[in-house]
Amino acid sequence: MTKIKVAINGYGTIGKRVAEAVSKQDDMEVIGITKTTMNYDLEIALEKGYNLYTNNSENFKGVEVKGTIEDLVKQADIIIDCTPEKTGETYKPLYEKYRKKAIFQGGEKKNIGESFVAQMNYNDILGKDYVRVVSCNTTGLCRTIGALYKKYNIKHVEAQLIRRGADPKDSKKGPITQIAPVIKKGDLPHGHHGPDIKTVIKDLDIHTMALAVPSSIMHLHCIQVELEETVTKEEIIELLKNTTRIKMIKYEAGFKSTGDIMEYARELERSRNDLFEIAVWEDSIYVEKCNRVSWYQAVHQESDVIPENIDAIRAMFSLMSAKESIKKTNETLGIK
Amino acid sequence: MTKIKVAINGYGTIGKRVAEAVSKQDDMEVIGITKTTMNYDLEIALEKGYNLYTNNSENFKGVEVKGTIEDLVKQADIIIDCTPEKTGETYKPLYEKYRKKAIFQGGEKKNIGESFVAQMNYNDILGKDYVRVVSCNTTGLCRTIGALYKKYNIKHVEAQLIRRGADPKDSKKGPITQIAPVIKKGDLPHGHHGPDIKTVIKDLDIHTMALAVPSSIMHLHCIQVELEETVTKEEIIELLKNTTRIKMIKYEAGFKSTGDIMEYARELERSRNDLFEIAVWEDSIYVEKCNRVSWYQAVHQESDVIPENIDAIRAMFSLMSAKESIKKTNETLGIK
Amino acid sequence: MTKIKVAINGYGTIGKRVAEAVSKQDDMEVIGITKTTMNYDLEIALEKGYNLYTNNSENFKGVEVKGTIEDLVKQADIIIDCTPEKTGETYKPLYEKYRKKAIFQGGEKKNIGESFVAQMNYNDILGKDYVRVVSCNTTGLCRTIGALYKKYNIKHVEAQLIRRGADPKDSKKGPITQIAPVIKKGDLPHGHHGPDIKTVIKDLDIHTMALAVPSSIMHLHCIQVELEETVTKEEIIELLKNTTRIKMIKYEAGFKSTGDIMEYARELERSRNDLFEIAVWEDSIYVEKCNRVSWYQAVHQESDVIPENIDAIRAMFSLMSAKESIKKTNETLGIK
Amino acid sequence: MTKIKVAINGYGTIGKRVAEAVSKQDDMEVIGITKTTMNYDLEIALEKGYNLYTNNSENFKGVEVKGTIEDLVKQADIIIDCTPEKTGETYKPLYEKYRKKAIFQGGEKKNIGESFVAQMNYNDILGKDYVRVVSCNTTGLCRTIGALYKKYNIKHVEAQLIRRGADPKDSKKGPITQIAPVIKKGDLPHGHHGPDIKTVIKDLDIHTMALAVPSSIMHLHCIQVELEETVTKEEIIELLKNTTRIKMIKYEAGFKSTGDIMEYARELERSRNDLFEIAVWEDSIYVEKCNRVSWYQAVHQESDVIPENIDAIRAMFSLMSAKESIKKTNETLGIK
Repeated sequence: MTKIKVAINGYGTIGKRVAEAVSKQDDMEVIGITKTTMNYDLEIALEKGYNLYTNNSENFKGVEVKGTIEDLVKQADIIIDCTPEKTGETYKPLYEKYRKKAIFQGGEKKNIGESFVAQMNYNDILGKDYVRVVSCNTTGLCRTIGALYKKYNIKHVEAQLIRRGADPKDSKKGPITQIAPVIKKGDLPHGHHGPDIKTVIKDLDIHTMALAVPSSIMHLHCIQVELEETVTKEEIIELLKNTTRIKMIKYEAGFKSTGDIMEYARELERSRNDLFEIAVWEDSIYVEKCNRVSWYQAVHQESDVIPENIDAIRAMFSLMSAKESIKKTNETLGIK
Repeated sequence: MTKIKVAINGYGTIGKRVAEAVSKQDDMEVIGITKTTMNYDLEIALEKGYNLYTNNSENFKGVEVKGTIEDLVKQADIIIDCTPEKTGETYKPLYEKYRKKAIFQGGEKKNIGESFVAQMNYNDILGKDYVRVVSCNTTGLCRTIGALYKKYNIKHVEAQLIRRGADPKDSKKGPITQIAPVIKKGDLPHGHHGPDIKTVIKDLDIHTMALAVPSSIMHLHCIQVELEETVTKEEIIELLKNTTRIKMIKYEAGFKSTGDIMEYARELERSRNDLFEIAVWEDSIYVEKCNRVSWYQAVHQESDVIPENIDAIRAMFSLMSAKESIKKTNETLGIK
Repeated sequence: MTKIKVAINGYGTIGKRVAEAVSKQDDMEVIGITKTTMNYDLEIALEKGYNLYTNNSENFKGVEVKGTIEDLVKQADIIIDCTPEKTGETYKPLYEKYRKKAIFQGGEKKNIGESFVAQMNYNDILGKDYVRVVSCNTTGLCRTIGALYKKYNIKHVEAQLIRRGADPKDSKKGPITQIAPVIKKGDLPHGHHGPDIKTVIKDLDIHTMALAVPSSIMHLHCIQVELEETVTKEEIIELLKNTTRIKMIKYEAGFKSTGDIMEYARELERSRNDLFEIAVWEDSIYVEKCNRVSWYQAVHQESDVIPENIDAIRAMFSLMSAKESIKKTNETLGIK
Repeated sequence: MTKIKVAINGYGTIGKRVAEAVSKQDDMEVIGITKTTMNYDLEIALEKGYNLYTNNSENFKGVEVKGTIEDLVKQADIIIDCTPEKTGETYKPLYEKYRKKAIFQGGEKKNIGESFVAQMNYNDILGKDYVRVVSCNTTGLCRTIGALYKKYNIKHVEAQLIRRGADPKDSKKGPITQIAPVIKKGDLPHGHHGPDIKTVIKDLDIHTMALAVPSSIMHLHCIQVELEETVTKEEIIELLKNTTRIKMIKYEAGFKSTGDIMEYARELERSRNDLFEIAVWEDSIYVEKCNRVSWYQAVHQESDVIPENIDAIRAMFSLMSAKESIKKTNETLGIK
């Protein structure tokens, strides 16, 4: 079987993880990565055998540059755009010029492509040319709330996103000790997550609020779902346990904070101590008045969207069914 | 008029603030404070003219100790117990022995006395002997949600408390960079605030969730209220603006985070840059489907309960009406 | 006596403090402040009676604007430039155009004016037109090391500056949980403080290192001074105790961290809980081999340079001696 | 060859890493680990095939417990004591009872055994029964300063340790936003690191200061070494580059903070993203007056002592020379 030729445009937090995930598949391969500046990531990337393409070869003295980004795009079957927020849209014309498929990340505008979360709408993007893997937070909301959505009739969801202020490597961004609510002018006042999740689960009645805190390792969500039906705590636990890409954890087993979740991820010995699954505190699941379900969950912002990028590739080339692709991706990435 | 003789048991974060607030009233006076160890607070407390009582006089070499805590209790009309969490209950027998009234803080068990928030249930504690000023967070929830409760029929409230991990002076407690959800074993899973608010607003249908973050300056609340009635954003703004001990702030005026609120408080030139009011982001108020109201608010954990302690004293001695006491307390503390 | 007419260009962290300090003097007055955008500071500034000048009057709807910055400069005897780092130099031509004296802050280049720390080189700026009050950190180093410099022969100083990452109100800057060393390309590798202190104490042999940490409230310095002479710990304590604008504190009195120092400052009831003095841990002073002295000190970055600005005004108009000015400034600002 | 039977007493931050490192050697094996409570670490430890011993079997329902700690000690050739600070000394009598060799960690008192850093004093512990691998910070200081010590005559060293407040998984400890200096009563005022390093490099003239900051990922050191000889920056770089267990990094390659170092470690794909080496910023090395050398270095507190534990085992059984053991340990752990 010919492998799908994948170009990684942007070798940063997401890009380097997608590159590695692609490398672990037998039906696709990384034909090149792009970078704009030389830093400590590059040396290791080259050791791993990735070909470097760049429009700024003057920044890469002593390193073999294979060509420009355009050179790379020409050879690719698909481009995974992992450039910084709002940058993907500036590259889309290049991908269109060569009639190449492309996957964008959640920082791009909604209309850049079809929104995607594998376990929710894989079939919607079969054969599509432009897909947007939604943000880490939206992916996290879709996986868990989506599981309830498939089984029950949801009346209403309230969700609050307590966001890490910056990624672990970023020492420039804050806040250092403040809590900063997200308040938007004019339109929806409390952030974009509510509207964003509706690009995947169209008829969901959801309202979200968001704020940034001085944390760097994970996002934490509080979720309250009001159902039409009555349910028990045990049913919800059972449901989430049987949903893919969700990891049930227990406070009483020592998961006191997001720090313990990341510590656990380190024990799993995956690359970069990533946690692709959404961590749900099983003993936080609470059912009030038989139909109001609430829980805490945590999202590893650097990695939960990685399996989605792999599945999106397969869907866009109609290689296999959702079930098959998710199974294959999970196995190759170590997701049980 | 004879002034009410007030003893302050515990001169810490709350105790020193209550002492100062009492000193600013003309119908009550501080007859003494208690401490267990000598530290940098003491020198200034003595300069301010407070009499020191302690059971640990060996810790206070070179300082005039007026007597034991029991000596102080004997002389007092009322004791404001500001000892650390769960310690007040160990002192209650002493207050009872001398048939003295006492006010406890929110860290004590609910049954230690009548729960109190001045603008909600002043009349309930008229003449009462034991009162518990509820916690800073519960006070904050009661003020704003209580305003809606008085005017509308509330169907349901969801509230999430993003709590500062430790006070500004406390360098021992964390978290440093983690987010730690509150998960309780067995009973109500998500913290004590929901049940606690019901000791003040008995029939409120409220569910709360809570978590600690690496912040030291303020708590932040996300609140979602579902009403029976339809309302407009303007009505809610008007209502909260006309409710005492609430300070409306605007994101677009530069209040980007809790840091800006504390910066603003410093400009007010109150003692210790305290903010007795609950700060509500006016431009975060959002009404969905005409009856779901949501907003962000921030609570200065060190000071919002201070005016409540003063009002409680007046209520317990039936000195004046709620309206008169709140007005008098506000004026003396600089609350507009 | 005619008061010196002071214009405050830039009403931010430093500007608002200088304005207030000037207002407390009887030989000078604030004739106006400038701002570029309207935020929560402004309302209170106007209540305090400051006249507003701005080049961006379109940003100040509903507020009385007295004129442009140029209008203000024309009327002033001296301008205190408190604009953001590196911005003062863009205003200097305007001050020169009207032949007005001006004081700049430590964020400007060294050659913008004479470097100044009142207790070290007041006489050097008598009658001068352009003066630069050095940065908060350099001021802190000059006060304590300068005290030793005046009495002893210093062989060498090593000093390390553990810097707060951002001010308390600033929620955009980090680091959140990283430690970031200051490393400069090519020239002096470890920050500008060593060279900067030499603009005040010309022949001091000092080497400094600096790093940013996730703290917002104070800088902390480690200092190691090697002397030609032998000394005792007691002599050093005595010397620093008798040096102005230094506050001796003790770890064993409860000053466990910079948090306790700020807590103490709040008890002092100065505006904005400022601490103009450099806090030196008395019980950290250590003398090794009779001539190596080391200690920890903390700097309140928002306020320690405020008294220097006041003294600089007096020196530049040759109003009185260093001793007289420092005494007068101290008394008016509550420094003992 | 018979493998040395290693017991790991305490399977926490250090214990789990030592267990894994031992497992990677061909001349030693882990015969059992101990735990006191069941948490999320255990499940993975059992999957890895470790035998569990505990004195608290009631805490481990449903898990196979192989015996008590005493049972484990009896079977071992050597115990690596990784119990919490100051706990090792309570276990020493048990190790002595069965005449078993034991290695303790740096949190124990100095006299519990011979202090050890492989590249400094391997030969000193040949055949010894009780050895103490010094703390992560002392190990870091010994590696770099020790390299200079071996080649040059050191007059004096000043070193400052900016310590992370708590480990990444620990959400209970602070500080959240304060800086807390280490000040000891009576004796050496600035922490134990100076005296501790002298247990390894006996005649070194060193003075250290230390403080805790709101960081969780790495310690950072500022180091200033005064030499008898004159040196160049290039010589120092060359020396450190050729010293084992030191990783030279460059600020200009993107290592802006400890966050970037940990990010780099994640790219290395070692277990738990550990960095066994001391990271030295090559472009921070600065030589003043030809003989004063200074630089910044960072220490991964969770892992830099792991290779030392392995080498200590070999030295205590006189298995091979220092050079051979360090080489073997480095190769098995991926240290270049």
